[in-house]
Amino acid sequence: MDVISVIRTKRDRGELTGDQIDWVIDAYTRGEVAHEQMSSLAMAIFLNGMNRTEIARWTAAMIASGERMDFSALTRPTTDKHSTGGVGDKITLPLAPLVAACGAAVPQLSGRGLGHTGGTLDKLESIPGWRAHLSNTEMLDVLSAAGSVICAAGDGLAPADKKLYALRDVTGTVESIPLIASSIMSKKIAEGTGALVLDVKVGSGAFMKHLDDARELAATMVELGTDHGVRTTALLTDMATPLGRTVGNALEVRESVEVLAGGGPADVVELTLALAREMLDAAGLKDANPAKALADGTAMDHWRRMITAQGGDPDAPLPSAREQHVITAPSSGVLTTLDAYAIGLTAWRLGAGRARKEDPVQAGAGVELHAKPGDAVVAGQPLLTLHTDTPEKLPYATEALEGAYTVAPSGTAFSASPVVLERIG
Amino acid sequence: MDVISVIRTKRDRGELTGDQIDWVIDAYTRGEVAHEQMSSLAMAIFLNGMNRTEIARWTAAMIASGERMDFSALTRPTTDKHSTGGVGDKITLPLAPLVAACGAAVPQLSGRGLGHTGGTLDKLESIPGWRAHLSNTEMLDVLSAAGSVICAAGDGLAPADKKLYALRDVTGTVESIPLIASSIMSKKIAEGTGALVLDVKVGSGAFMKHLDDARELAATMVELGTDHGVRTTALLTDMATPLGRTVGNALEVRESVEVLAGGGPADVVELTLALAREMLDAAGLKDANPAKALADGTAMDHWRRMITAQGGDPDAPLPSAREQHVITAPSSGVLTTLDAYAIGLTAWRLGAGRARKEDPVQAGAGVELHAKPGDAVVAGQPLLTLHTDTPEKLPYATEALEGAYTVAPSGTAFSASPVVLERIG
Repeated sequence: MDVISVIRTKRDRGELTGDQIDWVIDAYTRGEVAHEQMSSLAMAIFLNGMNRTEIARWTAAMIASGERMDFSALTRPTTDKHSTGGVGDKITLPLAPLVAACGAAVPQLSGRGLGHTGGTLDKLESIPGWRAHLSNTEMLDVLSAAGSVICAAGDGLAPADKKLYALRDVTGTVESIPLIASSIMSKKIAEGTGALVLDVKVGSGAFMKHLDDARELAATMVELGTDHGVRTTALLTDMATPLGRTVGNALEVRESVEVLAGGGPADVVELTLALAREMLDAAGLKDANPAKALADGTAMDHWRRMITAQGGDPDAPLPSAREQHVITAPSSGVLTTLDAYAIGLTAWRLGAGRARKEDPVQAGAGVELHAKPGDAVVAGQPLLTLHTDTPEKLPYATEALEGAYTVAPSGTAFSASPVVLERIG
Repeated sequence: MDVISVIRTKRDRGELTGDQIDWVIDAYTRGEVAHEQMSSLAMAIFLNGMNRTEIARWTAAMIASGERMDFSALTRPTTDKHSTGGVGDKITLPLAPLVAACGAAVPQLSGRGLGHTGGTLDKLESIPGWRAHLSNTEMLDVLSAAGSVICAAGDGLAPADKKLYALRDVTGTVESIPLIASSIMSKKIAEGTGALVLDVKVGSGAFMKHLDDARELAATMVELGTDHGVRTTALLTDMATPLGRTVGNALEVRESVEVLAGGGPADVVELTLALAREMLDAAGLKDANPAKALADGTAMDHWRRMITAQGGDPDAPLPSAREQHVITAPSSGVLTTLDAYAIGLTAWRLGAGRARKEDPVQAGAGVELHAKPGDAVVAGQPLLTLHTDTPEKLPYATEALEGAYTVAPSGTAFSASPVVLERIG
């Protein structure tokens, strides 16, 4: 087997054989295939695609590159969720303890922020003491004690994906459905969850801008999960506008705690409950009542237990940014658009995200939204509050707000997009 | 400027700006753009192409990455030839001294064998003492003394191309017209020749298998040369069958000396004279008579002078291989096909070429052709003689001969392909 013939096969629009895929993933993991060879193959895959058979084999080969976790010692059924990433998407934070409160075990491996999208681990790290990196044993201990755990994936899990993901990030080969689907599903399948719900975002703030692409990505992942014995479903959800009323790290933790306390923004509560029902159904817990668990405080109890078990203090005050800057409504009327990408980019420039992998994030930075599409606004009222420790970046950050929102005359027709657009699986 | 946005532009079928091209070539040469980033860009160019404006800028940027040679001190006009590579293509050997004998200066930078195609430097190194690597000063000295010089390109010439060429070789991005054209022309323009004739090969033994592709490559290169003030023309020539009656290193030197002595195979003589006339015309020497220079020994005198000036002994016996193996005609009739690729591959496997850049070649290895398409053959007569120092490789080498030739019944219609198919420029 030689790598040039594998690259040529895909370059010339052929189908990769199972042997070619197994070999190239293994050889790349071992360092026998060089980065520059894998990146030309990744670009050929980006441009010429892979069919379902190829994607399935590619995913299996990435799983086989590392260890598989085993939760069979747990007495509860395992169920997990993965979001493809959005702006203001803090759903994992209330969702994991909520589903745990309803009787399932939630082994939630999460990531850090990428580009304009926030990262669950970055958000939770704004809680004093909280630790993202756990050994496999610690992870099982937290899961047993709290019913859910949110942590970073260990190095032993799908190392081929870890290497390829970092490579794609620097070689312009990220937004490819076969590569995204196999990357997500190899980690989730290797993680060993019994059930999985995918939250596939669609809209300006998502990697998938179009419904057709999101549908194809979701269907590909559902098929991959099902083929590997993981009960998998997907919701396509709106990401044209940010979720909730905060975008940032500590800001989103605060909003998540509000949801766990029985309050919080309607769209966040709606999506959290929709995903909780999917996760519980997939885990075989059809009689669970997540709305009740939010209302009666058991979800909050599970949150406190999980944060504490990972070294965090759920009662410690959350950090806030040094400076605030208010953006006001330019006219009176109705807010008809609030663009997720522009708000995500603004939050990122304020310090909530990182420019390079090794950069730190600001816990307090971000954007508060005082109105959401459909809300009436009055000229001069606060529309957004920008939070940052680096006020010198404000001009650069506010540049991203150009065209980010529209205030139309009162009475302009407005139809809200549903939170959940479609269900697949 | 960042490399991801450059990659994305080409990936998404956009046109690269001049600034993007200048920056990415310079940054790659300096090591700021990594190999894996350039290789994903090369694959995107391979699959999505570059237009004439982009190719021109890409070529100019590669020229600007290094030094440009200057032959203005010479009293004679400079003229050079480049062949895209074929099987049995020893034309450079008689051609350079022949054109020098007719009054031009020929600064011929040449390369080594690549895949199934032979390399001019490998061939000349079978002459005892001959040196391929000259300093710029030595190169000018040989050119002044002998009228022609054939040597390796120095490290200072188009270093961006040197780096990119090595990268393309290992990343499956070789056979791309924009990348081939810019690679060849950046070296030739930086070399500083005043006129250039391109021998673009077409057929099984060439990199361009189809006439349309060869025509596009030739037209692209002619335009690039012309735009840089180099008088450039191209001949499209047949490479369906090997040139001449020998394929190998010392074997081809021997045949070249026959041509210089006024003999040699008709196709080699015809192509040598056709290219000589093009080179002399482009140099403004329209009254030169290359056929006379071959017949009266002045071309041979220039050859001897050139070889001697580069440390070689033109009278030393050439090395020959340890073993010969004869392949005979399977039946009587007329030889209708003799496949250039199959013969090139056989010669390569016999030891005339190298599997890796750093491998040595065998001076004596190769294939002698006892008949050419159109010749009558008798069952059992020698058709090919295989020469090698590694007879244990004979079974592997002869495998490549499967389907390499056809003997049809006597009287079968046969129409010979012309040596020169088309002229462009």
